[in-house]
Amino acid sequence: MSGVRLAVDAMGGDHGPAEVVPGALDHARAQPDDHVLLVGDRDRLAPIAGPLPSNVEIVHAGQVIEMHEHPALALREKKDASILVACDLVRSGQASAVVTAGHTGAGMAAAVLRIGRLPGVDRPALAVQMVRRGRPFVLLDIGANPDSSPEHLAQYARMGAIFAERVVGIERPRVALLSIGEEKGKGDLRIQRATELIDASDLTFVGNVEGRHLVDDTADVVVTDAVTGNVVIKFFEGLSTFIFDLFREEFRGSLRGRLAYLLLKPGVRRIRGVFDYERAGGSPLLGVKGAVIITHGRARRRMIGFACEVAAATARQRVPDLIAEALREDALRADAAGVGLDRAAVDSTSDPEVPA
Amino acid sequence: MSGVRLAVDAMGGDHGPAEVVPGALDHARAQPDDHVLLVGDRDRLAPIAGPLPSNVEIVHAGQVIEMHEHPALALREKKDASILVACDLVRSGQASAVVTAGHTGAGMAAAVLRIGRLPGVDRPALAVQMVRRGRPFVLLDIGANPDSSPEHLAQYARMGAIFAERVVGIERPRVALLSIGEEKGKGDLRIQRATELIDASDLTFVGNVEGRHLVDDTADVVVTDAVTGNVVIKFFEGLSTFIFDLFREEFRGSLRGRLAYLLLKPGVRRIRGVFDYERAGGSPLLGVKGAVIITHGRARRRMIGFACEVAAATARQRVPDLIAEALREDALRADAAGVGLDRAAVDSTSDPEVPA
Repeated sequence: MSGVRLAVDAMGGDHGPAEVVPGALDHARAQPDDHVLLVGDRDRLAPIAGPLPSNVEIVHAGQVIEMHEHPALALREKKDASILVACDLVRSGQASAVVTAGHTGAGMAAAVLRIGRLPGVDRPALAVQMVRRGRPFVLLDIGANPDSSPEHLAQYARMGAIFAERVVGIERPRVALLSIGEEKGKGDLRIQRATELIDASDLTFVGNVEGRHLVDDTADVVVTDAVTGNVVIKFFEGLSTFIFDLFREEFRGSLRGRLAYLLLKPGVRRIRGVFDYERAGGSPLLGVKGAVIITHGRARRRMIGFACEVAAATARQRVPDLIAEALREDALRADAAGVGLDRAAVDSTSDPEVPA
Repeated sequence: MSGVRLAVDAMGGDHGPAEVVPGALDHARAQPDDHVLLVGDRDRLAPIAGPLPSNVEIVHAGQVIEMHEHPALALREKKDASILVACDLVRSGQASAVVTAGHTGAGMAAAVLRIGRLPGVDRPALAVQMVRRGRPFVLLDIGANPDSSPEHLAQYARMGAIFAERVVGIERPRVALLSIGEEKGKGDLRIQRATELIDASDLTFVGNVEGRHLVDDTADVVVTDAVTGNVVIKFFEGLSTFIFDLFREEFRGSLRGRLAYLLLKPGVRRIRGVFDYERAGGSPLLGVKGAVIITHGRARRRMIGFACEVAAATARQRVPDLIAEALREDALRADAAGVGLDRAAVDSTSDPEVPA
């Protein structure tokens, strides 16, 4: 297993270096072949990190983009922001992966601007491993590209499948489009056209899935546009919290409830285990020339550790290279099948945009 | 309280007349001023209904559209289908409301074809009352119109607000657009343009909400496109069932679990009460010249009763008339504000389409 050089934005996230640094160090200790670059204010990071293991170093960055800032403005004004410095380490070849718990929009924009899109990628997509019984499935896009075309969705299918296969470990992942109605081709015009494009690929395409399939074992990669995908993950968070809160209130609200909780404790722990989204580490930004994992702003040490693990696996498995190769083949195959896209038309609208 | 004449498609739904007829009769008994027309095969309905109350009659219809049929084809071939006969009763003025538990696509198509769109309505929308703590909120569109324009979304806002005010009983309902990111104007181009249009109305517009707000008290009417809306309600069903199943397994899987369940029983009942979606009766199809409630295919007697109640309230409150009046005023207001839509362009694309 060859080592990966990992740039960790040590300043980002709600908890900042206090959680990010220990999480990154956990990874460095667990994976002595990997090399961890802690990016941030040296004076703040050094005391938290303590004596550095031989595979860890601090790379100074004097600024931080705060969670409330406007990403495009902040990136323009803060040239020495930790997320920019981390991405520049990939750009210059000193690292091949980035982990950040900072501002999602700023992280995506920094990655697109400094690391750059892979050749053939129209728009990068943000993916997530969604929990269900057993192994998770990959949902994308959950927020990188608000106005996606059918061609974008077809690219997400490929990118998601490569991530699912190489990092989640699902052989020949079943790919589906999230839609209204299960029959292939149902949905809006964008979905109908994307269906044709994915059908022309050699992916294991199972057609449409509905919202209710997002908890079962129908597909391993579910493709959707950024608005729907983002609504799904936020609703997942909101609804599951809502239901668990209702149970918590019942467990705490009476003597009977407290007794019930004591009896059910191992079961509640098992249920919590099913909903352990921290294991996924965070969201890979697929389609850029590096392994970029944008983890939860609220991530603590444990989740940061998983984020480093996923970032390292993404880089080690050469996911970005495989995406570029596969998209090149897909484009040829689509042309041969007569469903190819008009490259000129696509390229004219595919300038890397800074998400607002 | 003046009586409403209610056409009930007595053949539709997974359970057919066995559940629909008793549910409709419950409504007739509870609301003696209303008049219930049971539409379906007289020979099947009469024995189930028994001696008819004076405000109930059977209207014969010789055919049924089955759940697996293609709605457009079935509507063309089965001229005597119960859903068509029920809609024709509204068309001819013999009823002002329709309730069906049958095929959703067929119900929507029959309503559009036979009852017709209200003047000024580009596309009808299917709404739903979503459960949360306390009173529900209204989500639409959840599946009527796959390719919605910003103008459609703006009309949904108005239609949903009128339903929320008149039927759910929420004064000056807060209207929101479901999107990615909370700031007004964030989201895809469709949402950004819809924001301008709704801003020009006199609705209480609170801007964007995210998926996590679909369980809290941020808005009373949440507007979205059919694909996202449909994904949300199906995911709601799937995820809540998934979590409740996990608890059920723990309650049943061991002696400790069974004891815990006995202790927590009243609490579980309270939680079930929060998730009692049957009370909403079903989904109003807003924008047609009548009160049309499409209820769950799995609806049983109790939910059918609520569906009749909501249908009657929608008709009694003159929701269709109010929608037509309000949309006329909105169009004038939008023109005055310079954000009006190009009627000619809209009308050319607004032929009533049969959902596939």
